[in-house]
Amino acid sequence: MASVPDDMLLFAQRIFERQPFTRYVGARLAGIKNNEVTVELDIRSDLLQQHGFVHGGVLSYLADNALTFAGGVALGGDALTSEFKINYLRPAKGVRLAARAWPISTTRRQSVCACEVTCTNEEGTATLVAAAQGTIVAAS
Amino acid sequence: MASVPDDMLLFAQRIFERQPFTRYVGARLAGIKNNEVTVELDIRSDLLQQHGFVHGGVLSYLADNALTFAGGVALGGDALTSEFKINYLRPAKGVRLAARAWPISTTRRQSVCACEVTCTNEEGTATLVAAAQGTIVAAS
Amino acid sequence: MASVPDDMLLFAQRIFERQPFTRYVGARLAGIKNNEVTVELDIRSDLLQQHGFVHGGVLSYLADNALTFAGGVALGGDALTSEFKINYLRPAKGVRLAARAWPISTTRRQSVCACEVTCTNEEGTATLVAAAQGTIVAAS
Amino acid sequence: MASVPDDMLLFAQRIFERQPFTRYVGARLAGIKNNEVTVELDIRSDLLQQHGFVHGGVLSYLADNALTFAGGVALGGDALTSEFKINYLRPAKGVRLAARAWPISTTRRQSVCACEVTCTNEEGTATLVAAAQGTIVAAS
Repeated sequence: MASVPDDMLLFAQRIFERQPFTRYVGARLAGIKNNEVTVELDIRSDLLQQHGFVHGGVLSYLADNALTFAGGVALGGDALTSEFKINYLRPAKGVRLAARAWPISTTRRQSVCACEVTCTNEEGTATLVAAAQGTIVAAS
Repeated sequence: MASVPDDMLLFAQRIFERQPFTRYVGARLAGIKNNEVTVELDIRSDLLQQHGFVHGGVLSYLADNALTFAGGVALGGDALTSEFKINYLRPAKGVRLAARAWPISTTRRQSVCACEVTCTNEEGTATLVAAAQGTIVAAS
Repeated sequence: MASVPDDMLLFAQRIFERQPFTRYVGARLAGIKNNEVTVELDIRSDLLQQHGFVHGGVLSYLADNALTFAGGVALGGDALTSEFKINYLRPAKGVRLAARAWPISTTRRQSVCACEVTCTNEEGTATLVAAAQGTIVAAS
Repeated sequence: MASVPDDMLLFAQRIFERQPFTRYVGARLAGIKNNEVTVELDIRSDLLQQHGFVHGGVLSYLADNALTFAGGVALGGDALTSEFKINYLRPAKGVRLAARAWPISTTRRQSVCACEVTCTNEEGTATLVAAAQGTIVAAS
């Protein structure tokens, strides 16, 4: 599979930066490589739930966003997540989250993508904390 | 179905308020009635995506949280969402979101719940913007 | 909500009967009322798994099919299930299954529907055994 | 990851053969390798829908069953699918289906697994026709 052209990365970066909620939460588009998109987020106290773990809603936001961008790259333009499901696998406690998403199957107007979210602790160990699958559709 | 006892409402309220991410986003536990939980969120610019609609991640956070509390009420204690799926139905544009969740089926340790998220505009018209279904498990 | 016109029922019935797998399994389109579709199936030994309960795959087939027809009625023509999720709620043991599906939200080309599958035992008691939610798209 | 011991394969095979619906549909446990389970099914006219493609319910049955066995192997015993979601990707037309499932994450009592279903045509070309993700729990 060919690499994503530079202009697609710039295009995705620009959309990413124009999402107020993404800026508010503090996520960043960490990379796009061979259609695989990685979104990262440094964990801080604002993102936690009552037991000190990252709130599930943060993980679902991150998975949703990574899925959207993976689908957008696969479809070659602006895209929307139509639906997704997420399984929470283990409590997320650490310093950084990374959601990695990739297309499973892409047709002209739609891409079904998968996503894995890992949480890296202070020792640098990454743990798989969530897995998602969803449908991304071309925005226009 | 009997009403939720006052102490369950207080119990849920207390957990809700101890979620830093929930405070950060600004959601509130609007009510619990006959096992149905409603979580509300006033829309502000921080919560939007690049087209001016509410970010899907906000809707999935809201659905996740409403599902968790509906499951917790049904199970009678602290609870966690194990998995859920969400369908985005229409763009969310307006002044206020409300996620309403209720149990479909509850066993001793697990409750499968449904959720509908509506968006109310300035004229007071509510539109259904997302529907979710998920599994909530007792936390301890 | 208006009743489904007779020709829609006939149209659905005709599609239903032209599904070889549906005939093979033995399901029947039991009714369409106010956009709600019910598919029934008499339980027989061929449909069980190793513990004597109805095989989960039978429940998922039934949910899938009821969702497709509910979506088709909502969209007004032939339709396909694009995706769905199902939660198995209790073991299905009895004499008859009924999958009831209805639209949650319908746009021009797509209907998101919900489905509940019940199992009725010899005493006539119906138990909820599965709940599903999925996306149905117009076939042409 | 170590290979599955012979007795696990035999154990799985025995459960598989004791599922009446599996025998009725005609699926076979084609292999277990490094925790990956493959279930195959020869396509015949009984399994089709009204357009001549394999019925979605057959694909969902196959995915469900492959997920259950992948989870069972990961958990080391008899298992049940608690919930799953499936995306239909392309029409299934050909001579043989294969559902391949593997664990994404396994804890003591639960395994979240993924599954891909391919359809092989008369020329031997395999096409991805469905992707699923679900939760499998230990049966006892």
